Amino acid sequence: MCQLLGMNCNTPTDIHFSFAGFRKRGGQTDIHTDGFGIVFFEKNPDPSQGNGKAGIRQFHDDKPSFCSPVADLVNSYPIKAMNVICHIRKATQGTNCLANTHPFVREVWGEEWAFAHNGQLQMDFMDQLSPVPTHYQPVGTTDSEMAFCYLLNRLKSQFSEPPSNEVLFQFLTTICRELSALGLFNCLISNGDWQLAYAGSLLFFITRKAPFGEAKLADSELAIDFSEVTSQTDKVTLITTIPLTYNEHWQQLYVDECLMFRDGDILFKDTPDNPTRLTIEEGIAIARKVGASL
Amino acid sequence: MCQLLGMNCNTPTDIHFSFAGFRKRGGQTDIHTDGFGIVFFEKNPDPSQGNGKAGIRQFHDDKPSFCSPVADLVNSYPIKAMNVICHIRKATQGTNCLANTHPFVREVWGEEWAFAHNGQLQMDFMDQLSPVPTHYQPVGTTDSEMAFCYLLNRLKSQFSEPPSNEVLFQFLTTICRELSALGLFNCLISNGDWQLAYAGSLLFFITRKAPFGEAKLADSELAIDFSEVTSQTDKVTLITTIPLTYNEHWQQLYVDECLMFRDGDILFKDTPDNPTRLTIEEGIAIARKVGASL
Repeated sequence: MCQLLGMNCNTPTDIHFSFAGFRKRGGQTDIHTDGFGIVFFEKNPDPSQGNGKAGIRQFHDDKPSFCSPVADLVNSYPIKAMNVICHIRKATQGTNCLANTHPFVREVWGEEWAFAHNGQLQMDFMDQLSPVPTHYQPVGTTDSEMAFCYLLNRLKSQFSEPPSNEVLFQFLTTICRELSALGLFNCLISNGDWQLAYAGSLLFFITRKAPFGEAKLADSELAIDFSEVTSQTDKVTLITTIPLTYNEHWQQLYVDECLMFRDGDILFKDTPDNPTRLTIEEGIAIARKVGASL
Repeated sequence: MCQLLGMNCNTPTDIHFSFAGFRKRGGQTDIHTDGFGIVFFEKNPDPSQGNGKAGIRQFHDDKPSFCSPVADLVNSYPIKAMNVICHIRKATQGTNCLANTHPFVREVWGEEWAFAHNGQLQMDFMDQLSPVPTHYQPVGTTDSEMAFCYLLNRLKSQFSEPPSNEVLFQFLTTICRELSALGLFNCLISNGDWQLAYAGSLLFFITRKAPFGEAKLADSELAIDFSEVTSQTDKVTLITTIPLTYNEHWQQLYVDECLMFRDGDILFKDTPDNPTRLTIEEGIAIARKVGASL
């Protein structure tokens, strides 16, 4: 259990401001000390190459993110990415080791897919799901990687080639809800083009676009005036477990809501009937009740 | 085209001395300026976790390794690994972008497998191979990643579950030779437990064990007395395109020879009949002739 941070943009963007606050929750302003991981999807400078697909850069460390030298590098090296998924971990299932460190990555139809989960699934959740052919297997011992492999195995079994984004969104929403029924399940998934956010309990997002203003981090003294570092057409969406800034309006996903972002915009949205939202306190209480931390 | 560096040990070992010399070939002492990548397989501190399997840490950068901030981190952060594969690139097929940066990684039977290639395959080499079901697809546009996916697709088609290391070695040797017949092909492959080295032209290795002595880098002023930083039972094998030190005896693989290392020892070896070796000059000349650099 853990916290999530995602970014989806219409232009290559440096996440270091958000990461500077988020990483402090890994041992300084919060207790998520069992390692961290971050995956950057970077646009190919030559779109005719790499089949136009995004390449990735991954950083994982088993040290707490607030003091990790790898996190220092991530913070100081200006990496401009179209999509980012980051995760800080408080181990509940599976010890603190690299094989258990999110985000997990698999190649799907010649694309890199990254996945990070916050929550906790029932120990025997796999027994409660229909058997599915094994294209992907977990390397570590987390419920999270097991869930990711299950999701991808269902996907590969259902589709022999990539469906449209709309069909994909509907399919992934269905699987996320199936998993969410077996425990606590919030997740971020990206293939470098879109980013999917599913909220089983707590997830917030904000889309920054013109006119840009100042943002002040909740976990640090840092502030930034985005109007000085952006252009008028930039659109950058941040998604996270608990809002990173205290002077901006973050939108909260409903419980059981699924969104797909692309170019910083909502591409698809599936909101349940009679939608409800949890307070942050309620979300933390639910996480603690199932043995997860938040 | 490129140069390779691999390490296989019987105890978690820090590769920074070898890497300090090797990275200079990425733009300072040699021309391999189109990015670099390094994959560390780290032993799980708790062997009952992670299914006992190694977790990985990956660093890729599209900057030259001699001046890359990511390479600086790799050099300064003491990461102790059982297996390492590193690659510095001079692009010949596929532009310089992250999706084309070795090592390539895929999950196979719940293990991470890493692969790096030096050489150049014929443009249409895939047309000359038998079609094989597509479990894995390349993300980038290199001949190398295509060859890795081909190898894994053949593996998955042949075996529904992991064979013994001996059968695996024979199978991988066969595929490497098949690929090598279609161009220039040197490679390193590891699943975190063993490391396979196939020489289509140039590949050297050295096994350091007690009594340890001093080693002096060829690409730098650096020297190290291994007797001061090792224990009597340590066994560390380094594999590389061109020897990294000038005062030690590196053994050269024969052309078309395949070795599998485990715990720093040769586990299996397949040497062709009438074995031959190239001089480094001959190896460089062959690489240049096929449009690759070395």
